[in-house]
Amino acid sequence: MSTSFTMLGGEGPDSYRQHSKYQGGLFEAAKEKINKAISMKLDIDFTSNLVNIADFGCSTGPNTFKAVQTIIDAVEDKYQKESYLDEIEFQVFFNDSSNNDFNTLFKTLPQTRKYFASGVPGSFFGRVLPRNSLHVGVSSYSLHFVSKIPKEIKDRDSHGWNKDIHCTGFSKEVVKAYLDQYKIDMGSFLIARAQELVSGRLLLLLGSCLPNGVQMSETLNGMMIDCIGSSLNDIAKEGLINQEKLETFKLPIYVAYAGEIKQIIDDNGCYTIARFDIISYENEEIPFDPKFLTVSFKVTIGGIVSSQFGQHVMEKTFEVVKTKTQEMIPQLANAKPGMQYLIVLQRI
Amino acid sequence: MSTSFTMLGGEGPDSYRQHSKYQGGLFEAAKEKINKAISMKLDIDFTSNLVNIADFGCSTGPNTFKAVQTIIDAVEDKYQKESYLDEIEFQVFFNDSSNNDFNTLFKTLPQTRKYFASGVPGSFFGRVLPRNSLHVGVSSYSLHFVSKIPKEIKDRDSHGWNKDIHCTGFSKEVVKAYLDQYKIDMGSFLIARAQELVSGRLLLLLGSCLPNGVQMSETLNGMMIDCIGSSLNDIAKEGLINQEKLETFKLPIYVAYAGEIKQIIDDNGCYTIARFDIISYENEEIPFDPKFLTVSFKVTIGGIVSSQFGQHVMEKTFEVVKTKTQEMIPQLANAKPGMQYLIVLQRI
Repeated sequence: MSTSFTMLGGEGPDSYRQHSKYQGGLFEAAKEKINKAISMKLDIDFTSNLVNIADFGCSTGPNTFKAVQTIIDAVEDKYQKESYLDEIEFQVFFNDSSNNDFNTLFKTLPQTRKYFASGVPGSFFGRVLPRNSLHVGVSSYSLHFVSKIPKEIKDRDSHGWNKDIHCTGFSKEVVKAYLDQYKIDMGSFLIARAQELVSGRLLLLLGSCLPNGVQMSETLNGMMIDCIGSSLNDIAKEGLINQEKLETFKLPIYVAYAGEIKQIIDDNGCYTIARFDIISYENEEIPFDPKFLTVSFKVTIGGIVSSQFGQHVMEKTFEVVKTKTQEMIPQLANAKPGMQYLIVLQRI
Repeated sequence: MSTSFTMLGGEGPDSYRQHSKYQGGLFEAAKEKINKAISMKLDIDFTSNLVNIADFGCSTGPNTFKAVQTIIDAVEDKYQKESYLDEIEFQVFFNDSSNNDFNTLFKTLPQTRKYFASGVPGSFFGRVLPRNSLHVGVSSYSLHFVSKIPKEIKDRDSHGWNKDIHCTGFSKEVVKAYLDQYKIDMGSFLIARAQELVSGRLLLLLGSCLPNGVQMSETLNGMMIDCIGSSLNDIAKEGLINQEKLETFKLPIYVAYAGEIKQIIDDNGCYTIARFDIISYENEEIPFDPKFLTVSFKVTIGGIVSSQFGQHVMEKTFEVVKTKTQEMIPQLANAKPGMQYLIVLQRI
């Protein structure tokens, strides 16, 4: 059974679109490094004069629009003095699960864009584009999703059963099961992209990772996820969810250590690592406002909760989350900081 | 001001998806001729082993899925004895206005498809794909839309004012204004596709046209459109729509004569006409069942009415249409038959 995870669609106050600026911040902060990588490593094929760009896990925007524009600007910067720049055309493939709200994505495409836009529905753990067709791929805050929950974690009778909704880091067996699945999925992602990418072309990966020695449950993300878990427990006690069903509900998320990610890339063997940067930026951490924190996690994790327990339970759960977050402020302020990465891979 | 026209989305009983089989019938009937055209005229570029197919005006399916599958089957038929057939990959671009319900399209993509699917939002009167990237384009029952209503037709004080919601054929000036706009739009479509198509590759056009000497208002389509117009008038008399607003409301539709279409293609100069067939098939005409007729026109024209006057007025209007259609059955049975065409163009 594979799980599906999409951000909350539409354009309302609780939509992903309205709450995505903290993810956009990393791309902004990484801009200069991306420019440098493209300038040094990306060549245009002047026989076709076409640059194909894809965002894997695009959601509904606007971050995806900023990301592809950054890439296009970098290419234009590189070739600005060449007369044939006008001949170059850009085609952008916005990829996400077929449950993603592509209607909103399409209606909010920048009016002034200078590229041909297309939406590509399907799981990025498999192929979604033709062989040798892609020049720059990007994936931003998407690769912490795993395609399914390891079986033993959901099984109460198993030694590896996880009582929490996520990998807190305290049980070595649970962490190993999540990591094993993460390796499989990240490996599948890298293999699929390797087939799609033209040789020598680039794959940019951005997201969060864990600093060495820090456990998921010690970070802000981990604490908030634990808070969502305990809120779901409260809801179950009220009888709104079946307790047994809750016990098998786990989030399909694994935040890896930088070293784990590097190892998976090395093992894959299809890429050279052109850059592996840890990025710091202002406003890196989400502000400690209970309402803001709650909505931030609602737009990203609410969809998973909702697909499992329905819209009503999801709304109720995040009401509890908001109250609990208020009480947790001192604790959250002591959370160990996470890390943001930019990895630039070049297809061998 | 450009108008937007999309079929009714979703999967409900009044959705385009559930009522599209009569348009699908033409493609089915034209299958053999399409196979022959592809077999004789389409060559694969074995340096890339990629066949790019696009449907312009795809709506939400399932007809668009059948259309592209017909094309893929024809290519596979042609190359079935070649060992490199397994190497060929198909990429399909589903194009429609950004108001189209792409979410439904993506969720209902055939599970067993052997092609990479992508949705391309944007008006097909302009460019939507990169230069020299397309191998087979198809457009089915989409080219009777015009991009805007000629100004003089909407202006009460103008000599060319049209009192009806459509070009009935009785006023020469109105017909000329619609035809002029149709020439511009069809010309823009052909120019855009000519830039997108690789030289020597194919563009398939399917749709309805008028037989010589037959006026729009004498056909079933024309009578039904007149019926929608008179129903809107009844609704206006009830005070549900502003009379003045109704007077400027015209349908952006022009059904051309076969000779007019041929002339536009010749004038364009970018294509040779590989085939120009009039297709007959069983069940070509919609059955004379008032409910069926009403819903058939509701799914295609309801969206235009709804975008102008709102969902409520649209629903009310089609209730009146249903009653009127009942009374019109003898008249409709005497309608002059329309004609269906398959045109295969080869890019010079």
